[in-house]
Amino acid sequence: MEDLTAMAKRAKAASRALAAAGPLKTRALLAAAEELERSQKEILAANAEDLAAAKREGVSAPLLDRLALGETRVKGMADGLRGVAAQEDPVGEVVSGFVRPNGLRIEKVRVPLGVIGIIYEARPNVTADAAAICLKAGSAVVLRGGKEALRTNLAVEAALRRALEQAGLPADCVQLVRDTTHASAQAMMRLTGYLDVLIPRGGKNLIRSVVENARVPVIETGWGNCHIYVDASADVAMAAEIVFNAKTSRPSVCNAAESLLVHQDIAREALPAIKARLDEKHVELRGCERTRAILGGGVAPATEEDYGAEYLDYILSVKVVDSLDEAIAHIAQYSSGHSEAIVTNSYANARRFTAEVDSAAVYVNASTRFTDGGEFGLGAEIGISTQKLHARGPMGAKELTTTKFIVTGNGQVR
Amino acid sequence: MEDLTAMAKRAKAASRALAAAGPLKTRALLAAAEELERSQKEILAANAEDLAAAKREGVSAPLLDRLALGETRVKGMADGLRGVAAQEDPVGEVVSGFVRPNGLRIEKVRVPLGVIGIIYEARPNVTADAAAICLKAGSAVVLRGGKEALRTNLAVEAALRRALEQAGLPADCVQLVRDTTHASAQAMMRLTGYLDVLIPRGGKNLIRSVVENARVPVIETGWGNCHIYVDASADVAMAAEIVFNAKTSRPSVCNAAESLLVHQDIAREALPAIKARLDEKHVELRGCERTRAILGGGVAPATEEDYGAEYLDYILSVKVVDSLDEAIAHIAQYSSGHSEAIVTNSYANARRFTAEVDSAAVYVNASTRFTDGGEFGLGAEIGISTQKLHARGPMGAKELTTTKFIVTGNGQVR
Repeated sequence: MEDLTAMAKRAKAASRALAAAGPLKTRALLAAAEELERSQKEILAANAEDLAAAKREGVSAPLLDRLALGETRVKGMADGLRGVAAQEDPVGEVVSGFVRPNGLRIEKVRVPLGVIGIIYEARPNVTADAAAICLKAGSAVVLRGGKEALRTNLAVEAALRRALEQAGLPADCVQLVRDTTHASAQAMMRLTGYLDVLIPRGGKNLIRSVVENARVPVIETGWGNCHIYVDASADVAMAAEIVFNAKTSRPSVCNAAESLLVHQDIAREALPAIKARLDEKHVELRGCERTRAILGGGVAPATEEDYGAEYLDYILSVKVVDSLDEAIAHIAQYSSGHSEAIVTNSYANARRFTAEVDSAAVYVNASTRFTDGGEFGLGAEIGISTQKLHARGPMGAKELTTTKFIVTGNGQVR
Repeated sequence: MEDLTAMAKRAKAASRALAAAGPLKTRALLAAAEELERSQKEILAANAEDLAAAKREGVSAPLLDRLALGETRVKGMADGLRGVAAQEDPVGEVVSGFVRPNGLRIEKVRVPLGVIGIIYEARPNVTADAAAICLKAGSAVVLRGGKEALRTNLAVEAALRRALEQAGLPADCVQLVRDTTHASAQAMMRLTGYLDVLIPRGGKNLIRSVVENARVPVIETGWGNCHIYVDASADVAMAAEIVFNAKTSRPSVCNAAESLLVHQDIAREALPAIKARLDEKHVELRGCERTRAILGGGVAPATEEDYGAEYLDYILSVKVVDSLDEAIAHIAQYSSGHSEAIVTNSYANARRFTAEVDSAAVYVNASTRFTDGGEFGLGAEIGISTQKLHARGPMGAKELTTTKFIVTGNGQVR
C-alpha cells in the first residue's frame, strides 16, 4: 500500500507555503480552471475508460450517471473553480480583538486548519470541488475517491497539480490516494497527528463508517431524512407546492423531503391536494392508518423503517399527527438533523417549531431544498454538516478554517 | 452498572426545558451558590470521608491536595457559580442574518448543544464549575468524576439538583455517574446519539484515552508543552522575567512553560541571567550541549523525551538554536499546540513567529500563563481546547453551544 503517512507529511509541508499564500491561491484556482479545460480530452478519455470498466463490473445506472463526465460537466468543474477563486479569502480575518486592562492586546484570527482529508465515492467532480475549497481555506488536501473513478480522478489531479506549480505553490497541496481499497480508507482514518480533519462525502454507509472508525477529527456531512409538517392553519396550495418541490425537484439529494406530517384538522383537505400534485411525478406514498383512510387503497402502509428512511427516490412517508407537539416529537425521533419545514399561518406555531426542532436548518413556509451553500449565499460548499460541533449546515471555505489567539505585550507577567 | 443510556435520555429530556429557560438558568445558578454554602457541612463531611479513604489507599500528596476541600474552596465554588450567573447568556444570539434575493430570510442563531458529558479526575470543584458552564450554555450535563471524590461529588450534585428544582428546572439537568470504574468511562464514550459532546478534563493520559476511544464527538482540552523563544534582539531582563513567571508562578498548570529556546547570538548573555532568576525557585534545567557549555556542569543533558515533556514541575528543558527558523521548526515538532511565546524586539520576527507557530495562543513579549478564560476576559472556562475544530484556546459557555439556521419565507420553492 502507499505510504499515507509520508503523503500526509508532504501535505503538511505544502500547507505551510499555502498558509501565507493569499493571492497566489486565487492565481492557482484560476490556473486550475484553465488546466481543466485544456486537459478536457485526457480527462474525458480517462473517464471513458472508467465508465467501460464500471459497466463490465455491472455497476448500477445511478452510479454510472454520477461517474460520467462530459464536456458540460468538465466546463462545470472549471466554472466551479472560478467561483471559488472569486470568493472572499477567509484566512486572516480578525474575528475579535480587544486590549485587556494589563495592556495585553488579544486578537482572535482566522487561520487554516493545515491538512484536510476527504473520502468520497464515485463523483469525479468532487475531486476538483473539494480541492478548490480546501485550497481557498489555505489547507492542503489528501483526496481518496472511489475506485470506479480512479482514472478520471488521476487526470483531474494532474491538471490541478500543474496549476499549483504554475502559480508558484507546491503541487503537494493536492494529492490523490492511488490505493482505492478499504485498507487505504482505514489508514486515512488513523492518520492521527497528520490530518487535521477528515470529511466523508457520500452515502449514509460511508459516512457512518468514517464517523465510527476514524481516530482523526471528523466532520459528519449529511444524509437527510427531511420532514415537512403541514400545520392546521396551513395554506393548502402552498403546502402542496412546497411538498411537491421538496420531494420531486431532485429526489437524489440530501435536502429532499422524505417524510410528510399533516395535522389531523387539515388532513382531509390537504392530503388529497398534495397527493394530486405528487401524482404528476408518480410519487409512491407510504402512509399511516389515518392517511390511508383518507387517501384510499393506493397508499401502502408505512412501517417504522419508512419513518427513518432516506429514500433518495420518488417515495414519501406520510403520517397524520394530532398536534404540533406530536409533529415535533416525531421529528426528534426520526430526523437526521438536516432540514425540516413547517407550513403554517400560525405565528405561535412557527415560533415553537423553529425553536424546538433541533436540526441544522429549520424552515417556515419554504422548501427544504434551499439548504445549500449556493442558495444560502455562502458560495461553493464542501458538504452540509449534520453534526453540532465546529460547523452546522452548509460548509464553505470559512467553515474549513480554525482560529488562533495572537497576544502581544510589552513584558506582561501574571 | 448504571444504565448510562437511561441517564443520557433523562438528560436529553431535561435539556429541552433548559433550551428555552433564559432567566431561569440565572436563578438556578444563584440558588446553587446558596445551596452550596448552606450545605457546606455535609460537603466537607463527605470530603473528609473521601480524604480518609484516599489516605488509606496511599494516594499521592498532590492528588490529596486536589481532592481536599475546605471552607475557602466551597466559598470559591459558590462564587464561581455567581460569576457564571453574571455572564451574558450565549443562547439566542443571532450570529448573522440576511435576506436572499428570493425573499427568504436566513438567520444563523446560537442554540444549546443538548447534552454534554464531562469525564474528570479528582478535583471536586470541577463538579460545580462544569455543571454551571453547561447550564449557562443551555445544555444538560452528565458528570463522571474520579472515584476518590465520589462522596464529595454526590454532596455537590445534591445541592445543585435542589437548586435546579427551586428554580423550576428539571433536576436531571445535572446528573453524576455513580459508577467510577473504567467501564463507566468506556460506556460514556459510546453514548452515540445521546451525548452531543464529551469533554475530558484532567491529565494527558485521561485525555489521550478519551480522544482515542470515544465514539461520540470529543473536545480535546489541553495538556501543554509550552515554549518560550528568546530571540537575538530580546531585552534580556524582560526575557528573564517572562521565563521566571511562565515556569514558576504555577508549575502544575497547562499554560506553564516547559521548554526554553534561546538564539545563539544572545545565549551567552541571556542564559546566565535567566538561570540566576530560576535559581531563586531551584528550577532544574536540562539543556543541550551548547546550553551546558555556557551554564556549566549544574545543567543535566536534555534528551528527546525532555523536549516533548509536560513536567508540571520546577524543571525546564533548554536549547540554543541557530535561528528563528530552527525555533519554529523545534516548536512544530515538540509542541502540544497550547501556548508559545517569543521575546523579541524585531518586528519582522514577531510577525513571522505569530504567523507560523501553529498553537492555540501565540505571544509576543508576554508570559504563556495568560492563556486562561478569566485572563482573556471570557469568564469562567470549561478548559483550554488544543484541537482545531469547533473551539481553540480557552472555552467558556459560548464555546459550548452550536448554531442553527432559521429560514422563513412565504412559499418559496426551488
